[in-house]
Amino acid sequence: MPKIKRPSDSTIHRLSVYYRVLQSVEKEGYHTVSSKELAKREKLTPAQVRKDLSFFGSFGTRGLGYPVRELREKIAKILGLDRTWNVALIGVGNMGSALASYKEFQRQGFHIKLVLDNDQRKIGSNHKGLEVRDVRELEKELKTNKIDMVILAVPANAAQGLAEEVQKTGVKAILNFAPVNLRTNDEIHIRSENMAMELEYLSFCLTNKTTPSSD
Amino acid sequence: MPKIKRPSDSTIHRLSVYYRVLQSVEKEGYHTVSSKELAKREKLTPAQVRKDLSFFGSFGTRGLGYPVRELREKIAKILGLDRTWNVALIGVGNMGSALASYKEFQRQGFHIKLVLDNDQRKIGSNHKGLEVRDVRELEKELKTNKIDMVILAVPANAAQGLAEEVQKTGVKAILNFAPVNLRTNDEIHIRSENMAMELEYLSFCLTNKTTPSSD
Repeated sequence: MPKIKRPSDSTIHRLSVYYRVLQSVEKEGYHTVSSKELAKREKLTPAQVRKDLSFFGSFGTRGLGYPVRELREKIAKILGLDRTWNVALIGVGNMGSALASYKEFQRQGFHIKLVLDNDQRKIGSNHKGLEVRDVRELEKELKTNKIDMVILAVPANAAQGLAEEVQKTGVKAILNFAPVNLRTNDEIHIRSENMAMELEYLSFCLTNKTTPSSD
Repeated sequence: MPKIKRPSDSTIHRLSVYYRVLQSVEKEGYHTVSSKELAKREKLTPAQVRKDLSFFGSFGTRGLGYPVRELREKIAKILGLDRTWNVALIGVGNMGSALASYKEFQRQGFHIKLVLDNDQRKIGSNHKGLEVRDVRELEKELKTNKIDMVILAVPANAAQGLAEEVQKTGVKAILNFAPVNLRTNDEIHIRSENMAMELEYLSFCLTNKTTPSSD
């Protein structure tokens, strides 16, 4: 990535979206795609698309559009999707089980290599082809399995303690599904998924009969 | 909400975050809270907090901070959380099952009243206290149960058709978990959750050793 100003949260999110559109467009056999077409598929404006993509260097040719494969590969590189990542899942309750079988992870290069829990009845059992390991062996297991990222799918009251333990092991990224705000230092990247917040967004729209503007 | 310019996606998301912090602060027994305190708990700047809140009218008193209960109630009203919402869940596979037991929904006033599937083996069975209904009776079921919002937890190839059916029934909000971009008209509000995109955000951070700027 060129050393320019940092992209915003929303830009990164839209890169993920463009990446998916490009995957589809490539499958459909197209070699070039216009900013208009990229925008249309995602209800964005062509200007937004061009602005986002120009942020990471110049890709397109005026009048010809973007070369599909080249652009997809470039975005893959920016997002770190030109490689695979080893992921550990902590917690195999309802949400953890669903995430363990979420095919989109594997499809984009995120391989769940390790599944951990603290429940003696679950430890040692087979979960979607992986033996559930004891979370008390967290540090050893993360190292042995060369884990890059951790998904936390544990109850709210367990999440903070586990996030701190993960941080001590040197793993630098957590995707958190517990409905709680994790406090860690700045050396670790944390994203929290709170599904209720998405419903709150919708209830805002219904209540105010409006849609927030995109960022 | 005052008739001013539309708030952004990120502002609405942060209101959800403030709402949760205020719920905690209120439980801890505080009557007032400063923008600094609100910011600290969520790693934002006090200026951002003040800007977000001033968007919806003036709440705080300089030097005294915000009245906790009043602010929480005001945000609840803006987000439409001063009432309950009837939610239908379509699809009781892995993800649907997890969502049916996701306690945070109920806690914030989103009540899953109806569960539907197209699998004959599931229809009629009891799922977390609700009888699974036949998705072919979608329109009738949504009306009978006075559903406000639909959660789609179905395979990617089924999502578009179902979104269109939901739209025809007059329901105005869908939270989509299928990894596909839904195309609908502008009369319906749609949010899509794609967990892989959150991992892509993290892989961006790890790859570029940086964090995107907040919007």
